[in-house]
Amino acid sequence: MSKYTIGIDFGTESGRAVLVEVESGREVATAVYTYSNGVIDEKLPESGIPLEPDWALQDPEDYIRVFQNTIPQVLKQSGVDAGDVIGLGIDFTACTMLPTKMDGTPLCVLPEWRAAPHAWVKLWKHHAAQPEADKINAIARQMGQTWLNRYGGKISSEWFFSKALQILDEAPQVYAAADRLIEAADWVVWQLTGVETRNSCTAGYKAIWSKREGFPSKEYFGALHPQFADIIEEKMTYDIRPVGQKAGGLSQRAATWTGLKPGTAVAIANVDAHVAVPAATVTEPGRMVMIMGTSICHMVLGSGEHVVPGMCGYVEDGIIPGYFGYEAGQSCVGDHFAWFVEHCAPAAYQREAQARGMDIHQLLEEKAARMKPGESGLLALDWWNGNRSVLVDVDLSGLLLGATLATKAEEIYRTLIEATAFGTRVIVETFQQNGVPIHELVACGGLPEKNKLLMQIYADVTGRPLKVSTSSQTPALGSAMFGAVAAGETAGGYGSIYHAAQKMARLKDEVFMPVPEHQEVYDQLYEEYLRLHDYFGRGENDVMKRLKRIRADARG
Amino acid sequence: MSKYTIGIDFGTESGRAVLVEVESGREVATAVYTYSNGVIDEKLPESGIPLEPDWALQDPEDYIRVFQNTIPQVLKQSGVDAGDVIGLGIDFTACTMLPTKMDGTPLCVLPEWRAAPHAWVKLWKHHAAQPEADKINAIARQMGQTWLNRYGGKISSEWFFSKALQILDEAPQVYAAADRLIEAADWVVWQLTGVETRNSCTAGYKAIWSKREGFPSKEYFGALHPQFADIIEEKMTYDIRPVGQKAGGLSQRAATWTGLKPGTAVAIANVDAHVAVPAATVTEPGRMVMIMGTSICHMVLGSGEHVVPGMCGYVEDGIIPGYFGYEAGQSCVGDHFAWFVEHCAPAAYQREAQARGMDIHQLLEEKAARMKPGESGLLALDWWNGNRSVLVDVDLSGLLLGATLATKAEEIYRTLIEATAFGTRVIVETFQQNGVPIHELVACGGLPEKNKLLMQIYADVTGRPLKVSTSSQTPALGSAMFGAVAAGETAGGYGSIYHAAQKMARLKDEVFMPVPEHQEVYDQLYEEYLRLHDYFGRGENDVMKRLKRIRADARG
Repeated sequence: MSKYTIGIDFGTESGRAVLVEVESGREVATAVYTYSNGVIDEKLPESGIPLEPDWALQDPEDYIRVFQNTIPQVLKQSGVDAGDVIGLGIDFTACTMLPTKMDGTPLCVLPEWRAAPHAWVKLWKHHAAQPEADKINAIARQMGQTWLNRYGGKISSEWFFSKALQILDEAPQVYAAADRLIEAADWVVWQLTGVETRNSCTAGYKAIWSKREGFPSKEYFGALHPQFADIIEEKMTYDIRPVGQKAGGLSQRAATWTGLKPGTAVAIANVDAHVAVPAATVTEPGRMVMIMGTSICHMVLGSGEHVVPGMCGYVEDGIIPGYFGYEAGQSCVGDHFAWFVEHCAPAAYQREAQARGMDIHQLLEEKAARMKPGESGLLALDWWNGNRSVLVDVDLSGLLLGATLATKAEEIYRTLIEATAFGTRVIVETFQQNGVPIHELVACGGLPEKNKLLMQIYADVTGRPLKVSTSSQTPALGSAMFGAVAAGETAGGYGSIYHAAQKMARLKDEVFMPVPEHQEVYDQLYEEYLRLHDYFGRGENDVMKRLKRIRADARG
Repeated sequence: MSKYTIGIDFGTESGRAVLVEVESGREVATAVYTYSNGVIDEKLPESGIPLEPDWALQDPEDYIRVFQNTIPQVLKQSGVDAGDVIGLGIDFTACTMLPTKMDGTPLCVLPEWRAAPHAWVKLWKHHAAQPEADKINAIARQMGQTWLNRYGGKISSEWFFSKALQILDEAPQVYAAADRLIEAADWVVWQLTGVETRNSCTAGYKAIWSKREGFPSKEYFGALHPQFADIIEEKMTYDIRPVGQKAGGLSQRAATWTGLKPGTAVAIANVDAHVAVPAATVTEPGRMVMIMGTSICHMVLGSGEHVVPGMCGYVEDGIIPGYFGYEAGQSCVGDHFAWFVEHCAPAAYQREAQARGMDIHQLLEEKAARMKPGESGLLALDWWNGNRSVLVDVDLSGLLLGATLATKAEEIYRTLIEATAFGTRVIVETFQQNGVPIHELVACGGLPEKNKLLMQIYADVTGRPLKVSTSSQTPALGSAMFGAVAAGETAGGYGSIYHAAQKMARLKDEVFMPVPEHQEVYDQLYEEYLRLHDYFGRGENDVMKRLKRIRADARG
């Protein structure tokens, strides 16, 4: 009798459940629930209280509705008996966090806090805590906090303590009323099991925790704000659980929501990007996973601890237990091509695409694929949305060089693709030079399915074979795999994520191999890229920052 | 009784006659004749002999047809009596040159040379003489020829001796059969008057002649090719006549073609750009004329001789007798905006323009005009077609910097306009720093009529008032003015081009004054422009040249 496991991936706009056969990894059924309140960035539901710019909230009840809607659906679609579902895993955007009462009740569902913006879930892309992030960084530097090195020297406004401190700064009464401050990832697991747990992935990547050093000191937190000194004891916990463990069994209440059996194993929570790593077959060092969508998240495992300058962070047990999980990122990839199509694709191409029943991206790819490396004479710096690794500088901006009156749209399009590939090569080489070797790339996410030219260019530019995950929903598959691990071997699952990956994760047969003649040209172009990268990115000519200042002045 | 004068402007595709009232400069009638053989760049007429790439020829009989068609037309349209037309002036593209027999018969009309490409008129944009230009420059440097300084250190493949040497190199029999090698400008005056003359403008700007030093030495010409040593004596003349003089009276034959009276005064020939200077009211130092179309030609008068680095050239008596005429240029202006609209204007804007019955340029201008200087955060180097002044380097290419995911098409459009204005400011300041002061700009050509934003930006960026010529056909008006000067005061014309300009040339009332708040921002942006200009343009980072080499290799 086949056993099944369910993975649930909480994204920005919706949640997705996938029911997977444990033995084979076959994805049997999928269901999606779009959050009824979506991303809340203009005004609060019901009260209509307006939000400031850069705010982005969510409604925690939407997350419960994901369980209530998608799990019954996948059971029904597949005809699988609830008794054959042995485990459940979830992954979430991060840092997405909320304040709750001691029993897990979100403050925002309580009538007295319903109209308080700070009582709601702060979504990962809530960017209004920049002053708090600046303070966190400045005081860390003043106090010589060595943990800054683990995060490329800078804590983001998106991360946990920036958001928590913003609550304290702007709504001290909400902060005081919050018994718990918790990642939404851990909160939904709490809702499933009735047990509060905290996972090592979000703690490590978003909340300055490490297995060896724990959290920053009370002294440090106190320096940020006197009432912040005891945040860990008061509203969080020192007990951080490695991913791959079981959080608990499904509660009676959650069984009612989902139609699953009470006691079904629920895994410790995970982050959407990181959980995709084993789903892309990677459970060992040397093979970098790239989640390629609007941006790229790069993840690679290392056997030891290495400070790699300019990366997003590294966390022991953060991705796969027993390894250091290293993370890097590029902030503008799919977004880059989308920008180009919206703002620069000429009308004639739009007409041609329409006449041929193609997507404009397909048409541009087709035209761009006819060209040889170097043939456009163009070069770009892929900083349309700043640089996340290795320069870690949001104030950098895009550059296109080499244009002539003969330059065509597809040449610019191809150049933007190449620029993002050069950006990835900088990351790969920086890891390699700092003790984290990489000999193969594994791609997953939305882009690899759509654009073969892009895949070939990444292989050619990095000089490494590039493989592609078979699953088009790797985060959900990864969560399902962790569900099977939480269930354990005796229940028909797996003893570890390594074993689960061997059976359940798969790559496509097609491998993109670097073409030596392409590599030769791209090596020359990369040298030019690096020179411009350092000239504009490392302080020799800060024109990009000065232009942003002039722009800010002009806008008043 | 009113007197009249006719100016004829020979362009790339057609010739245009304007009949003008001498006293007021009022343009009474205009007629255009489109060359029946146009630009010959694929195969010769009749014989069908194919041409190599980069060739561009014309048919000299088309020029005669301009006289035969347009002059009778303007007489008819205006009802002016031929006896009241006192003078005739012409201007031409340059260097546009041809080989003829001693009596002026073009070689290409003779049956024995009809199928020889080198026997035809070489149009200004014939670019196949680059090897000859390279040789001219290399040997000049070897031999320490000081005249190179007059031309920014480089002779163009478009100029007279490059083209003449190509005839000798590739078709020695045509070279031998040519009794005369002559600018088309001078050739059409010869056809009108029966007298061969050579004008100081084309000789100075295109044929390395100067009033004080004459032509390069026989020794130098001989070093290019033994048979080239005596080119001046054999096929040209040392007798160069300043513009503003009378070439002769209309011949009986030309009177028959045109319907004008035999003996009507014909002026010494002129170049289309340079002849526009007095038509734009400028006959004294300090006011720079910009002919703004696909490219910009900048002209300013100076009282003394100054070597201004990186300019196209300066010629004593070259524009206005008694002054040094300084010329500079930008190779990509209107072309730049046309490129943008063709290759980068998004489909949505094309639809909006169509729906509102506007030209897409107008729409982009409207949107761009809503922005403040510096508000886009963008900066560009306007080198899409290389740099003609002051870097004199065709291998430079375009750069756009500062793009973000929020960058809109109109912001890029405005930035390209600003970049061309910064390019003009570099020229203005280089003149100023080298003893040729400029306190005002006067624009003419196609662009100023169309784009007020562009005019304001040029005023703001250069910090100088910008005025616009009233005439939309300044070259033809200028030629007509020189016709009135050739006729002289006694015939009802003018004693000098200064007097003619005072009476016949006019500027629009609207003056674009620099706005101090704009200047402040543009001064900051100009500083950034200059730094990038020097970094990429003066050898610190030759990435643009290396990309062009990589491109050439890739194209095989």
